[in-house]
Amino acid sequence: MRALYAQSGGVTSVINASAYGVIDEARKNGLEIWVGINGVTGILKERFLDATELDIEFLKHTPAGAFGSCRKKMKNEADIQKLFDIFQKYNIRYFFYNGGNDSMDTAWRVQVEAQKRGYELKVVGVPKTIDNDLPHTDHCPGYGSAAKYIAIAMMEAALDLRSMWVDSTQVFVMEIMGRHAGWLAAAAGLGWLNGIGADIILLPEKPFDKDEFIAAVDRVVTKKGYCTIAVAEGLKYPDGFFVSDMGYTDSFGNRQLGGVGFTIAGMIRSELGLKIHVAIPDYLQRSGRHIASATDVEEAEMCGRMAVRYALEDNYGVMVTMERVSDSPYQIRYSSVPLNLVADQTKMLPKDYFDGYEITEKFIRYALPLIQGEPYPPYRNGLPDYRMFDIG
Amino acid sequence: MRALYAQSGGVTSVINASAYGVIDEARKNGLEIWVGINGVTGILKERFLDATELDIEFLKHTPAGAFGSCRKKMKNEADIQKLFDIFQKYNIRYFFYNGGNDSMDTAWRVQVEAQKRGYELKVVGVPKTIDNDLPHTDHCPGYGSAAKYIAIAMMEAALDLRSMWVDSTQVFVMEIMGRHAGWLAAAAGLGWLNGIGADIILLPEKPFDKDEFIAAVDRVVTKKGYCTIAVAEGLKYPDGFFVSDMGYTDSFGNRQLGGVGFTIAGMIRSELGLKIHVAIPDYLQRSGRHIASATDVEEAEMCGRMAVRYALEDNYGVMVTMERVSDSPYQIRYSSVPLNLVADQTKMLPKDYFDGYEITEKFIRYALPLIQGEPYPPYRNGLPDYRMFDIG
Repeated sequence: MRALYAQSGGVTSVINASAYGVIDEARKNGLEIWVGINGVTGILKERFLDATELDIEFLKHTPAGAFGSCRKKMKNEADIQKLFDIFQKYNIRYFFYNGGNDSMDTAWRVQVEAQKRGYELKVVGVPKTIDNDLPHTDHCPGYGSAAKYIAIAMMEAALDLRSMWVDSTQVFVMEIMGRHAGWLAAAAGLGWLNGIGADIILLPEKPFDKDEFIAAVDRVVTKKGYCTIAVAEGLKYPDGFFVSDMGYTDSFGNRQLGGVGFTIAGMIRSELGLKIHVAIPDYLQRSGRHIASATDVEEAEMCGRMAVRYALEDNYGVMVTMERVSDSPYQIRYSSVPLNLVADQTKMLPKDYFDGYEITEKFIRYALPLIQGEPYPPYRNGLPDYRMFDIG
Repeated sequence: MRALYAQSGGVTSVINASAYGVIDEARKNGLEIWVGINGVTGILKERFLDATELDIEFLKHTPAGAFGSCRKKMKNEADIQKLFDIFQKYNIRYFFYNGGNDSMDTAWRVQVEAQKRGYELKVVGVPKTIDNDLPHTDHCPGYGSAAKYIAIAMMEAALDLRSMWVDSTQVFVMEIMGRHAGWLAAAAGLGWLNGIGADIILLPEKPFDKDEFIAAVDRVVTKKGYCTIAVAEGLKYPDGFFVSDMGYTDSFGNRQLGGVGFTIAGMIRSELGLKIHVAIPDYLQRSGRHIASATDVEEAEMCGRMAVRYALEDNYGVMVTMERVSDSPYQIRYSSVPLNLVADQTKMLPKDYFDGYEITEKFIRYALPLIQGEPYPPYRNGLPDYRMFDIG
């Protein structure tokens, strides 16, 4: 009777802390814990690591998916049959799947198919996404660290621009991940708590109006000489079309987006004739473990532990969630939600978390506890002492 | 009899530490120290801050130019005459100018013009550039911190790609600052000391051969499934033409470059049909004080102090330099070089610091001491406690 853990979807700087939580909690409870390499993609090839004796300490400070992730969806019958043959072969009875919206859909399908087949299997989802767009949870592990990274990056870039604008660059644009929701882009405004941040935040939740936007940039530049802009990659026109659509879809069927920062910069250059710099942190924002949030690292680990505890309490077919008890002092309570209620769902930034191109007090009260603390990784050779498993 | 300090050119995460060094050393030696806002641009408008009583502690941990920088060159007679009228009016007799190649040219012109005019003025240049391309100094303040940032960013992105390549993105490209020289791009290879870094580094020092490059990417991807690439913005074809030329020049007459990351990615996509992510850290790499190098912060401050000491010893018309005494234990000696020997000069990466697309042991021995130590800034609200002067 074995437990299996695997990682799925875009990684974060703290997903390995969840892996640590699952593995350590499983061991403490006497479960034989295995790990699937590259999520269901590797499991279908019987690629496993026995984690019962693995040295896992470094998982708490190493970003990205130490066991490999995947983008695969379990949509066809042949894959599902093969998965259950493999589960049966290795007597896998617990399945902890660590991912976001798409991955929770996979977890849900596997749970449903197990019941259909009369195969005893307890599936628990461990939430993970820098996008923070899973419903029924106050927030998601991975978001706090990415938000902290973005807030700091925007502060530092804004200080840079503030130095340079008098006879050089006057506009800085940072393109931020967030295909559907603006949670992460909104974090670019948090720096104002310490005096400097994004002047304009373009969110997918606010349909893009070019004329209104250009007028806003012009106003800011006229007033203070320079303007910092955060733009979510999922920015949309009122008709729902992405401002920057790359023209193709990934294997989950999501439209590939890219280059919205340059699209926006081009508009400003042609309309206002200003010199512009564009930054695209890309992977850096989601794997920037060197400046993770302590709250996030701790909660990521606890979400992993809770998944094991729920499964052992026969609370399965669920995803671990966090409920906000209070903002200050910050307090959360762990809970769970049926997987089908999160599968393929998206939680947008609430209307009262932003006002035009700015974030509100309410968003700040929400986000502030999530970026607290600096659990720096250990350093060796002047660089983080990240470690790896041999995953082929 | 006053001393004047000012900042010029693209900023760094430690230029303010040099400002701290100049101001503190000047005070200790009884000089009345003023600061020019926005370099010569502001000085020509008589924009000064009296720094004799200013609270300057935060300069040691706040990135970018706290006093504002500029891109102005002192090329015309009217500007030079006006500058000397202003120097005379305020009895400015020491001028500490903090910048890179172009700024040292300005410092040199000012020193020469002072001598021509019989105006007693002692000019000392304080080096600063993330590009690390000033000659006659072992390295430049600003480089160590930017190199540390790039090395860590590439490690984190490489771990991300390593998680994802099996059924998603297989190539990651990071576009790195460095108009003429590949010092900073080379730092993307330092992560290998801790197990993971850039597979291919494209340097301006090695003329770009598209076919050879595509074959190299193909080899790496075939061997291990994914490939990480660092590309310097100043990458050139054998005929000297930039691989990505934006089509215009800045006010220093430098060609504006941008988008080489996407140019390279486009080549790989069309030749090899692989899915690619591109990151452009832009300002983030040169103002990322949250992960500066301790060596760099200390040396930046000392370069500021040495500038004042040299001026007081009547060693002027020079720039402060650092000479490497030994790599291990790391030891440097401060010295100086006549400004005309650094003005508008560029030091390229030596031929034995790279081999094809990789860095050599020799580069590692050179760069390693420069990225040591983590002098983290203080935090407030979960964010760095950066501060600002009111510079208008």
